[in-house]
Amino acid sequence: MSFKIRKALPEDMDSVLKLIIELAVFENEPDAVKISVNDLIENGFREHPAFYIYLAEIDNSVVGMALFYHRFSTWEGSSIHLEDLIVTEQQRQKGIGKALYNKVLNFALKNDINRVEWVVLDWNKSAIDFYKSTGANVFEEWNICQMPRKKIIEYLSKVQ
Amino acid sequence: MSFKIRKALPEDMDSVLKLIIELAVFENEPDAVKISVNDLIENGFREHPAFYIYLAEIDNSVVGMALFYHRFSTWEGSSIHLEDLIVTEQQRQKGIGKALYNKVLNFALKNDINRVEWVVLDWNKSAIDFYKSTGANVFEEWNICQMPRKKIIEYLSKVQ
Repeated sequence: MSFKIRKALPEDMDSVLKLIIELAVFENEPDAVKISVNDLIENGFREHPAFYIYLAEIDNSVVGMALFYHRFSTWEGSSIHLEDLIVTEQQRQKGIGKALYNKVLNFALKNDINRVEWVVLDWNKSAIDFYKSTGANVFEEWNICQMPRKKIIEYLSKVQ
Repeated sequence: MSFKIRKALPEDMDSVLKLIIELAVFENEPDAVKISVNDLIENGFREHPAFYIYLAEIDNSVVGMALFYHRFSTWEGSSIHLEDLIVTEQQRQKGIGKALYNKVLNFALKNDINRVEWVVLDWNKSAIDFYKSTGANVFEEWNICQMPRKKIIEYLSKVQ
């Protein structure tokens, strides 16, 4: 069955949120998704959007997505961060993920971006193998640090 | 000796590039910095800037910086990425790094940001200990993937 890649519209955000939740479940974090359909619409479709989304469709049904946005590297300059690359479980192994990945890399190339970056869980060997096969560098020596808003408030209340 | 924290101006970008190069040397990547002073001015001081910088100064001389920008988490929503937190070697252990860190967290709090995120090298134990002492979560299970522009061009030329 053939699929189609297109830009997402505000009315697709219901389907997008479902895919985001599906990925969180796959990553063993079923309760991690705090955002709403409205958050997606407000942030993704304003004048300077916080992110861009390409969707994959089969028979007018959304089966995959790539969500990405601009970053800035103090080594390379303009960069793109691929936040989520998701294909719904029943539609994997059909080249849909690769087509979305290629689309994001093409966006980077056309928009004078110097680097595309993303993260992968170290146990997701099939994803890592695919990324390496395309020429991507995979770094194990960096740790990711996060302060959620609640912890920021707690910490700042102690130091100020 | 006391220090002052302030927003960076375009004329500070010379000093900023020097600090970026100092950090790259510390991270054993002395040749990694490809950007110029002009790249910093063009990207950091346009209408919708690609990043923001707080500087630390002693006697009108720049001794440290925090460079950060907006990201979007599909779990938490609006987030800030702290790309570089740098204090020049001779001025460490004086609370300058902590003051810059606190300033970025305060920016996040005031701007309705739900998460602040950054990366640290796994051998930089003193930095990791400091971040953990402030309540930050440090994750070892994510790998960072990157495609520099040259590899994007090579890869896309094969698949298209």
